[in-house]
This record gives sequence, C-alpha cells and structure tokens, in this order.
Amino acid sequence: MHINDLDTPALLADLDVLEKNISNMAKHCSEIGIPLRVHTKTHKVPEIAKLQVETGSKGITCQKLGEAEVMVDAEIDDILIPYNIVGKPKLQRLTDLVKRAKVIVALDSEETASGISQQATADGCVIPVIVELDTGSRRCGVGSPLAAHHLAQKAVKMPGLDFQGVMTYPSNVNAKPFITETVNLLRKDGIPVNVISGGGTGSEIASKEIGCTETRSGSYVYEEMTRVGNSEMLSPERCVLRVLVTVVSTPSSDRIIIDGGQKTFASYPPTPYGHIIEHPDAKIYGMSVEHGHVDVSGCSHKFRVGERLSVIPLHQGMTSNLHDELVGVRINTVETKWQIAGRGKVK
Amino acid sequence: MHINDLDTPALLADLDVLEKNISNMAKHCSEIGIPLRVHTKTHKVPEIAKLQVETGSKGITCQKLGEAEVMVDAEIDDILIPYNIVGKPKLQRLTDLVKRAKVIVALDSEETASGISQQATADGCVIPVIVELDTGSRRCGVGSPLAAHHLAQKAVKMPGLDFQGVMTYPSNVNAKPFITETVNLLRKDGIPVNVISGGGTGSEIASKEIGCTETRSGSYVYEEMTRVGNSEMLSPERCVLRVLVTVVSTPSSDRIIIDGGQKTFASYPPTPYGHIIEHPDAKIYGMSVEHGHVDVSGCSHKFRVGERLSVIPLHQGMTSNLHDELVGVRINTVETKWQIAGRGKVK
Repeated sequence: MHINDLDTPALLADLDVLEKNISNMAKHCSEIGIPLRVHTKTHKVPEIAKLQVETGSKGITCQKLGEAEVMVDAEIDDILIPYNIVGKPKLQRLTDLVKRAKVIVALDSEETASGISQQATADGCVIPVIVELDTGSRRCGVGSPLAAHHLAQKAVKMPGLDFQGVMTYPSNVNAKPFITETVNLLRKDGIPVNVISGGGTGSEIASKEIGCTETRSGSYVYEEMTRVGNSEMLSPERCVLRVLVTVVSTPSSDRIIIDGGQKTFASYPPTPYGHIIEHPDAKIYGMSVEHGHVDVSGCSHKFRVGERLSVIPLHQGMTSNLHDELVGVRINTVETKWQIAGRGKVK
Repeated sequence: MHINDLDTPALLADLDVLEKNISNMAKHCSEIGIPLRVHTKTHKVPEIAKLQVETGSKGITCQKLGEAEVMVDAEIDDILIPYNIVGKPKLQRLTDLVKRAKVIVALDSEETASGISQQATADGCVIPVIVELDTGSRRCGVGSPLAAHHLAQKAVKMPGLDFQGVMTYPSNVNAKPFITETVNLLRKDGIPVNVISGGGTGSEIASKEIGCTETRSGSYVYEEMTRVGNSEMLSPERCVLRVLVTVVSTPSSDRIIIDGGQKTFASYPPTPYGHIIEHPDAKIYGMSVEHGHVDVSGCSHKFRVGERLSVIPLHQGMTSNLHDELVGVRINTVETKWQIAGRGKVK
C-alpha cells in the first residue's frame, strides 16, 4: 500500500530512521560500557519495545503500571516501573504482574514501601524494589543520602520486598556525590546495592560516569541521541514521526489550512508545532482544535485543496500520545500498522 | 460504587452540573428564540449528545467525519459537519453516512464541492451542503459575499449536492454585514438560503442578532455559558469535569506529587493547569509527563501518600480528549461509565 492510499491525518513512522536510532543508541551504550534499559513512554508500542530489546536493550522501563501490563501482554519481560505504586487497585495489579514477568519498582516513602510489602505478602510474592533519589530534578525521590539509607533500612526489613538498590533522573555529574554517598552508606550497613539506575536521552555517558549499572533512554527512539529542542532539529534524517495531512482549504494566497490541529499535534509553546518536509518555507503559525493554520507567503509553490503534506511534529512523544495507530512506512510504502497499545494507560 | 473505589487518575463528570449546564443552555436559546445545534467536540460522548438532543437541541455538530460516524452508530440523527471533506476515503465514508442519517456538510471551495458532488453522484445520493464564510476568524471560509455567491452558484448546479445556505464561526455582530449581504445576493439570484448557522458558546444572542437560523454551542456543556478563561472560573458549581488523582509522593513539607501529568491533563499555558477542590490553596505549578507538581506551602493541611484529590482541569475539552472513559458521578457515587467514543477520531 502506498501512503497516498492512507486517509489523513495519519501518524507515520519512518522505519529506516527508527531502526537507525535504535541501533545507534544500542551501539553508543555498548561502546561506553553502560547497559541500556530503554524507556517506552515515548512510543508505547510493544512492537517497537521488542525491537529495542532485540537490538541490545537489557529490558524496558514503563512510567505507568498500565503501560507495563500492555508490554507484558506482548510477552516483554524485565520491566522497571520508576513510579510509586499506591492504592489497593494498583497494588493488586502489581502483584498480578509480578507473577507474570520480572518487574522492579521504585519508591520514595515508607508508606509506598509498606503498601507494596503488605500486598506482596498477602499474595505470596516478592517484589524487587529500588529507592528513588531526588538528585536535583525536584520531582519524586528522597532528598538526601541519609534519607535514602533510612528508607532502605526500613525496606530491607519488610516482608515481600527484595531491596535492589537506587535510581535517579536525570543522570548528570552533579548527582555523583549524592549517589556515591548513598551507595557507601548502604554497603557499609550490609545492604546490597545491585542496581543503580540512571536515565535521560543524552545522559548515557553521565550515567556511566556517576557509577550507574544501567541507563534509561526514551525519546531517542523518535528524536535521535539529543532531544529535539527547536525547529532546526526537525530533520527527516533524525526524526522518525511524520503526520500525514491534507490541505483542506486555501482561503488566500498567503495561507492554507491543513486537517490536523491541537487534537492531532501536541501543540504547546514553543511553536512552530512542526516542520513541513515538502515545503520547509511553509510555517505552521497556529492551530485550532482540528485545523492547522499555515503561512505559505514564503513559498513559490501554489497549494491546492487535496494536496498532502508530511509534517514532522515538534513534540514527538506527546503527539504520538494523541493517536491510536502508528503506520510504519519505508520509502512511501506502508509496511506495517501498529496499535499504540499503551496510549491512555495512565492508571 | 463510591468514587474511593476507583483507581486513579480517573476522569469524572459531576452529573448534576452536567445536567444543569445542558438544561440552562437549552432554556437560554429557547428564551432568545434561536434553535440550538450543540457541538459535541468538547465531550465526544454519544450518551451526552443524546441527553443534549433530548433536552432541546435540534441536532448535533461534529468537527470530524469520524466523530459523526460514532454518533450515527449511537443512533443520533441530524448532524452538521462544519469541515471540508476532502479525498477519496473520506468521500466514500461520507456517502455511506448520508445513507444512514441526516447529515449536512460545510465547504469553502469549488474543489471540495466538486469532490462531494462526484462521489454523491457515483453513490446515488444527494448531500446537503452549506458554504462556510470567513467573517473574521481567518480559519476556513470564503472571504467575501461575492466569493460566497460565486461558490453557491457553482454548488447549486452540481449534481448530488443540495445547497442549503451558509455558516460562520464565531457569531458576533461584526459578521452581520457579511452575512446579510451574502444572503441578499443569493436570494436575489433565486438561490434558497434555508440555513444560516452561527456558533460559539456565549455567542447565542449574537447568532440571533445577526440572523442565524441556528447556533452551535459546545464548550458550555463542561464550562457553563461563558468559557473558562482562568483559574478563578474553575468552580465546582459551573465546571463538570474533575480528575481524581492520588498523592504518590510528599518529598518535602512545601511540595507534593500527584499521579497525573501532561498525559492526564491538557497542560499548556496559561497555567495553573487546574483547581484542587479540597485544597484551593494548593497550587499545581508544573507537570512532567506522568506527574503533577503541587505547591502546598500555603496549606495548613498535612498531605499524606495515598490521599486523593479532585482537580478541575483548566482545559476541559482538551483534557477529556486524553482519556478513554468518563465516569459519571452524583454526590461521590459512580452512576455510570461512558466511553469517550469519539476520542482519537481525527480522520
């Protein structure tokens, strides 16, 4: 099937670029000597996660339990969930999942640890856990090596927990003293530290330098090894996604309207929403809910209703999250269609 | 079922407020004397659309063909699609739909009109159409009464089209000269104008004043009769949606983390993302993909891991678009669960 036979708007993945990004990151981590545990939140597609594991990733990371369930359903084993699992419904789902796959979870409080311990004990299983360190990002995580040590001491004593180590996000050199001190405190106390998990696309070398045992990289899958920061970086060679759109109106010579808006593109500042491959001088300057507004005053080309355009979205992972299906394409031919099975699994 | 038994994050609708908003808008339009054709893009839930029709709306509006298909599947008849339907796959779907329900579509070019005409003729049906006028919003639409007249003249001659009139968005008094001149030109030329469709929540009186035969209102369903513009307007009495979240981390005395972030809340400027009903002094100051960051320095309450909060999202329609399910609640009891069946139907 040629992409011209697809209805629009459609979310496409350039499979050549996808495979190149996956293989380059695996090679990069192998050369550095840091095991890679890819983060799948960017794509949420089990088939892509499988390809990443087959290409050298030791396992995967899922930000939500619901995403991990989707991945285990697709027979992916070895999953880190770097998220505090809280509340009875989720705890029951967690023990169900632990019986089906190798799952490790992060936590940052005694309350979370205790909840997991109680459910694991009730359901007769043992759950590997790591303590999340807040080494500066001010999200979740304990705030000091002493607090990490204190929580680890509690966790190692709780039945149903298998204490494995620590994690942080993102990896950077400033985190080294915090991590080193924590690991020293734990080991001195006889608490084993098998896992030191770091993360962030572009932070692989930092993960190695601060002593991590693995690094979590996610956005590289669609955006290459450094995050897309602005429109200049939206090149077809490094970015995987394209939103195939149709021109539905040509109201004036300087302006056209495409059939994708805020519910097709994740469109929040910074603009410019995306890059139109066929006409780099055409600028998407605004979006309403279902329409994209394009300034074509800089183009000599005369656009017509029905014409199709390929837009590389600025926010790749967030745009993917709006769609149910990802169409895998190689040189304008549809090779596969994947369900974005983890989309909407926010629980 | 009590809402405490729901897993989080969950999207809830306060059914009392929903019914009040729907009934008040119907009453408002009835008192003004302007027929209401609700826009369903805000909620995308067939059950809510049915309630709106039962409460006085003459029909519905769907922004995309895929949303209209979902509504017709749910046995809703009489749908306006104010969108240029372009390209073979959509044209075939349009003629299929026209055979199942009363559907009227807008267009703004000869190319769009011709495409619909050809497909309708090939498939043996007649499709009611209206011409979209750009009375100032600079989205789709013809730019002058003369251009509207010119396009209408073409459309009335095309087989398979049933020319019905004109539409604009949004309704406001500045649009009156454009509309009046267009209607006069058409009628003088013997072209019937049965439909003059205006729209926009809060523009119902304007629709009446500029001579519309119907008004399209959408966001009122979740936000009352004037759009929510800032956090001061996020009151539980006027806003329908709540995102039920759980506190998953209490890293410091001035800061807590909730289990909903950018993939649970449509979070783009203006902040502050939403209003926490139980603790109005707690401020959501930032969001990462799956975490919400809350400043609780202004609260005397001591938050604990596992505690639940109800957040009224700032962007109601866009937040709804991230979820698959809407839980209908009355006084903390789950009364119904609706699939957001039109979500993701961007084609």
